[in-house]
Amino acid sequence: MSDGLDSLRAPGRVAAPDEGITIDELRLASRNHALPMELLRHDVTPTGSHYVLTHYDIPDVDPSTWRLDVDGAVERPLKLDLAALRAMPAQTVRVTMECAGNGRAALIPRPLSQPWLNGAVGTADWTGVPLALLLERAGVAEEATDLVLTGLDHGIERGTEQDYQRGLSLADAAASDALVVHEMNGVPLPPQHGFPVRLVVPGWYGMGNVKWLHRITVATEPFAGFQNRAYRLRQEAGDEGEPVSRIEPRALVEPPGFPDFMTRTRVVRPGPTTLRGRAWSGWAPVERVEVSTDDGTTWREAGLGPDLGRWAWRAFDIPWEAEPGEHSLRARAYDGSGRVQRLDPAWNRGGFANNADQPVLVVVPGRGS
Amino acid sequence: MSDGLDSLRAPGRVAAPDEGITIDELRLASRNHALPMELLRHDVTPTGSHYVLTHYDIPDVDPSTWRLDVDGAVERPLKLDLAALRAMPAQTVRVTMECAGNGRAALIPRPLSQPWLNGAVGTADWTGVPLALLLERAGVAEEATDLVLTGLDHGIERGTEQDYQRGLSLADAAASDALVVHEMNGVPLPPQHGFPVRLVVPGWYGMGNVKWLHRITVATEPFAGFQNRAYRLRQEAGDEGEPVSRIEPRALVEPPGFPDFMTRTRVVRPGPTTLRGRAWSGWAPVERVEVSTDDGTTWREAGLGPDLGRWAWRAFDIPWEAEPGEHSLRARAYDGSGRVQRLDPAWNRGGFANNADQPVLVVVPGRGS
Repeated sequence: MSDGLDSLRAPGRVAAPDEGITIDELRLASRNHALPMELLRHDVTPTGSHYVLTHYDIPDVDPSTWRLDVDGAVERPLKLDLAALRAMPAQTVRVTMECAGNGRAALIPRPLSQPWLNGAVGTADWTGVPLALLLERAGVAEEATDLVLTGLDHGIERGTEQDYQRGLSLADAAASDALVVHEMNGVPLPPQHGFPVRLVVPGWYGMGNVKWLHRITVATEPFAGFQNRAYRLRQEAGDEGEPVSRIEPRALVEPPGFPDFMTRTRVVRPGPTTLRGRAWSGWAPVERVEVSTDDGTTWREAGLGPDLGRWAWRAFDIPWEAEPGEHSLRARAYDGSGRVQRLDPAWNRGGFANNADQPVLVVVPGRGS
Repeated sequence: MSDGLDSLRAPGRVAAPDEGITIDELRLASRNHALPMELLRHDVTPTGSHYVLTHYDIPDVDPSTWRLDVDGAVERPLKLDLAALRAMPAQTVRVTMECAGNGRAALIPRPLSQPWLNGAVGTADWTGVPLALLLERAGVAEEATDLVLTGLDHGIERGTEQDYQRGLSLADAAASDALVVHEMNGVPLPPQHGFPVRLVVPGWYGMGNVKWLHRITVATEPFAGFQNRAYRLRQEAGDEGEPVSRIEPRALVEPPGFPDFMTRTRVVRPGPTTLRGRAWSGWAPVERVEVSTDDGTTWREAGLGPDLGRWAWRAFDIPWEAEPGEHSLRARAYDGSGRVQRLDPAWNRGGFANNADQPVLVVVPGRGS
């Protein structure tokens, strides 16, 4: 017997050739939002301009009744209210976070989901309690290997009703010094970033950074729930696929000059100027950034700005003599793990981890105009 | 002789029948953002979730060198730094602001620009100096009739390079008690909302609320610049058109239940529930809201929440017995000026002021499922 939800069981699909952005994609693009590229100029992204992606609704959480449960394979299950969590020793870590779907809308064919171009990124100072400290207080069982993190956001996705839940191995949590966060840039988390409490797993794509966190369950096997099955790199729907995890290296050029309203093409006056941008990787520090001002024909090494911390992006800059004409600016990042940013997208059915570089189209008008 | 900018001189156009959302529209939809509809629950929109529309880039303004000039047809031109402006008597006003293009993407054919669905709205507590006080200090000439307001945002739009500028009549500014604002919700303006100073003209669509304001020029005739020519209601490109000004009445239903990720269709459990939403008008207070749960066949009057101030939206609510099946929820607002929200869009070439109501699709599953 039908439960009435058949219309919500459509499988994921990819766009037909030449199929424009659909109304479903536009609805997602309207409520979620990217970093406006010119704000790459800030070391720390202004709070309201950090990218946001929420699978379901932003929950309406009453901080007076919110509790964090730490349970499962532990000796002493914990139930903490917000005051108790805030009273625990806290750390502040500067983290560049990126959505696993960043770059999805540039893939051909385009997987239909949140249609990110390249701005699903931001950097914040996150303050919270080390997850390791909470686990130590609870006393993790010897046989434990994994965590299940549960948020208060609730919805239906390809027919599966669920609270947003992600699994994370204890080893991965430890390697990233994961934080149970209650402040963003020195103030309580805004609703859209997980108020009152979220997880931050530095170096990982956004899907692992569970917002509106209210339960941490210690487990003795990997979590096989919806979101851990969804975020995998597949060529076909039935593939097993590799799990999406850490952020691939990427560099973005801060658009120079000023924009055309409709096309966002840049206009730069002729003459000497400096090109700037940001580069990051969740695998290892960025060691080198190259910039091309001729659409990838030649590349020059950019200077790197100060180290802003292990998990934060790094500024880069390079001088450029802007000659009249059209130019395509590109940048690519190299990290200390040997990973290099791709110049062409690696297609997968979910549209994840596309770190191909982003050309910025610049028009330099004639000197006499 | 070409100046190299010919590619940026394309006239505005409307979409072809069945033309999907274009990449240019998606680029705008990614950087600008709407209110996630569930946040209609807040009297005051959380700061980072208030809608944002910027024509060009968000300027990088150094508050130590920023100055506000009040000049033109005045007896005593003023030049104020930020400390001087902040030292002047301030007022705080709760204002619901909406983009003139809200609803554009629902028009058929669709004018190509920022493709708003219906979330380009938000409410904030804006703190600033009454514009009337600044004008009084400067001493407005007897023959003055108008103002020209200039922002620091700079770009090119249909071939015209410009600083964002809008004209406003002295009479309209006075009728709305316009404010020169330096705080939003009790903190300095975020960059994307006009840091350090913007204009707020309560009751007017967003285009009149000039961000990154740095010059107020008193004039003796109406301003005929680009943005005042652009924001007009035209059927054909060459029409004179009526200027866009105050916000038309609109009610939006706060989506009940929980969403499907991809379609944003709502799932509501069967049984009694309460539907809620917000209604506003820039012409006069909202006096009545009607809700339909059967796609407009029948309408019932909703209860109105407390008055949040002359320029703020008003909450409404109405009980609903959710029966299994599919339902289309609609709402329409009536204001004290006799204006009634439209049920069908009034098309115009710029896609402005489309206050047609927004159906919310709800699926109520069977009781046994």
